[in-house]
Amino acid sequence: MEFKVIEIKQGVLSANDREADGLRRELREKKTFLLNLMSSPGSGKTSTLMQTIPRLTDSLRVGVMEADIDSDVDARTVSATGAQVIQLHTGGMCHLDAEMTRQGLNELDLDALDLVILENVGNLVCPAEFDTGAVKNAVILSVPEGDDKPLKYPLMFTVADVLLVNKIDAAACFDFDLELFTQRVHALRPGIPIFPISAKTGEGVEAWCNWLREQVQQWQES
Amino acid sequence: MEFKVIEIKQGVLSANDREADGLRRELREKKTFLLNLMSSPGSGKTSTLMQTIPRLTDSLRVGVMEADIDSDVDARTVSATGAQVIQLHTGGMCHLDAEMTRQGLNELDLDALDLVILENVGNLVCPAEFDTGAVKNAVILSVPEGDDKPLKYPLMFTVADVLLVNKIDAAACFDFDLELFTQRVHALRPGIPIFPISAKTGEGVEAWCNWLREQVQQWQES
Repeated sequence: MEFKVIEIKQGVLSANDREADGLRRELREKKTFLLNLMSSPGSGKTSTLMQTIPRLTDSLRVGVMEADIDSDVDARTVSATGAQVIQLHTGGMCHLDAEMTRQGLNELDLDALDLVILENVGNLVCPAEFDTGAVKNAVILSVPEGDDKPLKYPLMFTVADVLLVNKIDAAACFDFDLELFTQRVHALRPGIPIFPISAKTGEGVEAWCNWLREQVQQWQES
Repeated sequence: MEFKVIEIKQGVLSANDREADGLRRELREKKTFLLNLMSSPGSGKTSTLMQTIPRLTDSLRVGVMEADIDSDVDARTVSATGAQVIQLHTGGMCHLDAEMTRQGLNELDLDALDLVILENVGNLVCPAEFDTGAVKNAVILSVPEGDDKPLKYPLMFTVADVLLVNKIDAAACFDFDLELFTQRVHALRPGIPIFPISAKTGEGVEAWCNWLREQVQQWQES
């Protein structure tokens, strides 16, 4: 069967990058590490945070910015960890940019924080286009979403600095080829660390937390 | 634990609506029904089509427009059904609008089609904001994504005319409360039909196909 491929073009904006670089400079002065956490809706960003934060708080002071179009369910959930939490409502916006991230950071006490995690809007497309000013981008892809996602959403995997493959506890229910997925990710972003985890059972979370701890330490010592 | 809620506002555009209305008028003249199929990445839009199309082709002539940022894996897959298939590349764009949809429709032979299905970009946010000119909007939410999604992505559930709850075959692996989910959806969109399906096993697909057949018939007779 033949089919036709049609390219629809649009210009891409980017004066956001200067704002993001400025934000990173300020974060370096404060010795605060900002992690931008991105994924599709329902991949498990919040439940990953619920596993991650308690493992870090013995050595790091952690703050969280929960970005959502609406509701405050995630901020309610995460505030139970004792972390400083802010809910950002984007008013329909599909992503955060550096200026919006700054609005959130202004409400946190950065002098009292080593690590701030920005839970971006659940969206595998738009957030990839906007540098938030974060030091590193973490992307979660969950097993039920399928191993073909790097082919369809290449930019998200290209801007990622670390990748979590979540819901490995449900792997038996789905045909997810981790090796093929890893090949597809590494074709876009060679050598990027990939941590298979279950935010439900905690499996694999420690390795990811070790990576994150090291990143924060390097940032604070740089 | 206290947390602060910050509203970030942005203006929303909408001259797209006129274009969409014009497109619907043309579709009515041609007696072609356009269905806009939306969901998060990996909810099973393509596999749902693979179950749906073969059940319809005895009575309807079906065409498909596959929209993706990149790749043509979905068009390759769907073309195996024998349906007229076109792959739309959005060049990074996170949604389709009416004008982009028209570009796709121009490449199909509408006189030979009763039903065209537009598989929108995998995204639970942006596609909800743009009327594509479709007669009806179908939204898929898969069980692993969680029953809280209507709270976080309310617009998508507000613009939906029909809702498919996919991956019910994997329900045992996840805590998904269909009753609670239905309540949340109906609070946004009272009375909207909800079809639990498995695009893997085919369970529930017939009821959804019956609904779709009826919609096409009503459109063609109107």
